[in-house]
Amino acid sequence: MPEGLLIVISAPSGGGKGTILKELFAQDANLRLSVSATTRQPRPGEENGKQYYFISHEEFQDLIKTGKMLEYTEYCGNFYGTPKAPVEEWTQKGFDVVLEIEVDGGAQIKKLMPDCVSVFILPPSMKVLEKRLRNRGTEDEPTILRRLETARMEIPCAKDYDYIVFNDKLEDAVADLQAILKAEKMKYSRNTDVTERVLSDA
Amino acid sequence: MPEGLLIVISAPSGGGKGTILKELFAQDANLRLSVSATTRQPRPGEENGKQYYFISHEEFQDLIKTGKMLEYTEYCGNFYGTPKAPVEEWTQKGFDVVLEIEVDGGAQIKKLMPDCVSVFILPPSMKVLEKRLRNRGTEDEPTILRRLETARMEIPCAKDYDYIVFNDKLEDAVADLQAILKAEKMKYSRNTDVTERVLSDA
Repeated sequence: MPEGLLIVISAPSGGGKGTILKELFAQDANLRLSVSATTRQPRPGEENGKQYYFISHEEFQDLIKTGKMLEYTEYCGNFYGTPKAPVEEWTQKGFDVVLEIEVDGGAQIKKLMPDCVSVFILPPSMKVLEKRLRNRGTEDEPTILRRLETARMEIPCAKDYDYIVFNDKLEDAVADLQAILKAEKMKYSRNTDVTERVLSDA
Repeated sequence: MPEGLLIVISAPSGGGKGTILKELFAQDANLRLSVSATTRQPRPGEENGKQYYFISHEEFQDLIKTGKMLEYTEYCGNFYGTPKAPVEEWTQKGFDVVLEIEVDGGAQIKKLMPDCVSVFILPPSMKVLEKRLRNRGTEDEPTILRRLETARMEIPCAKDYDYIVFNDKLEDAVADLQAILKAEKMKYSRNTDVTERVLSDA
């Protein structure tokens, strides 16, 4: 059985990544979502292994030192990262594993795991992004402006990713992601035993 | 407008490439088939620019010397090759151009045009390939055995191609090719102006 893919997905602020992934997971039973580890305290209702693996600072540092973190970052005094073990366990079982990470994490993961498939989800234009943020009606003007400014800074990070998917129509974006996964699985580099298999079955 | 793709497709003897390409072309109006040039004489019914561009030995040598041949080979005293000009003209207009070439040509083209997308079509197994050759009922036993032997030598060339597509069910093979083309068009490396476009449309 071939190994599953490691899929890194990022999107700028307000990029609609959540909706696309929800639909992708609904259509593809072979996908697993990677759970991050964090040193912050669980909030009410959060379960260990569900939203996060909640671990101590010492455990987190130990995972970094022993090369068992795929990527990590510090935010407000707490660490957040992707432990290697569950990802490897799933891909070895043939599942495709999705890592949802910050826009600046793509290059970091690509260096560690050159075989990963990285996808950056872009809004069709800043105009559309702004319209979407306003249509939500959940954020005040300063928040909308801040989110647009953040997106503006994050979008150039797309250059470190393998693929660009536009978040225009939801069903198109999901179909785009599916085509990427399908094509990646056909790469010779992921199927180096293929000629031997064909030749031996005579 | 983005440039079209240059798609190199090869298959071992009896691999069923013709049927797959016919179906792919029927479904995709953006595809163009590259026409090879040859120094051999046209056969009755053959038209210049249709089956081949029929050119002289001098013209052919000149195209090689001036770097205007993508690949070429000599066979029974005649030259066969792919002139660059029509391929570049089409891709610049946004068409995807398919080159059907011999199984040993993939590495040659990849070196000259690293951006090309190369696909090797494999039979699911030697057993299936043999069955197909026999079911055709058009070839005698020595011919079938020779074709199987040729396929056996050609199959390891798959290692020089980007993608492997199995010729199991026709509609699956065509869908596989379509997914490859779709995914390739989403590569960041083919869309390096994308972030600028998104950011400028505010």
